[in-house]
Amino acid sequence: MKARVNVMLKNGVLDPQGAAVRHALGAMGFEGVNDVRQGKVIELDVADGTTEESIKQMCEKLLANTVIESYTIELA
Amino acid sequence: MKARVNVMLKNGVLDPQGAAVRHALGAMGFEGVNDVRQGKVIELDVADGTTEESIKQMCEKLLANTVIESYTIELA
Repeated sequence: MKARVNVMLKNGVLDPQGAAVRHALGAMGFEGVNDVRQGKVIELDVADGTTEESIKQMCEKLLANTVIESYTIELA
Repeated sequence: MKARVNVMLKNGVLDPQGAAVRHALGAMGFEGVNDVRQGKVIELDVADGTTEESIKQMCEKLLANTVIESYTIELA
């Protein structure tokens, strides 16, 4: 089965990558871009029957730095 | 309005970041992880009325390297 983990910087944490993208879009003539935040998406192909709890453990221990990042898990 | 762009390496393109995560999960005792692919998620806060076509242009010109990466756009 597939699981998708989205990892984003928490609100209030400076996101220089996102800021760079926003500036670049403006410089390229794209208007109306107010804010950009960039994060990671991690697609896991795990054995059938893997629990969401187990994937949560992976996030807590490795995939996300929970001090500055939040994550969401989607099972498919 | 918000738009979310997911950028993933195309199938067949080597993903060393994903491979590193898979090995790390295995070393940490998580079993049954067959494959990991890592990509980017870019959350855009754009002016109301921005068209999907316009966001597609941003992807083609800046956000994704379409030679090796594919992208999906979700408007919310």
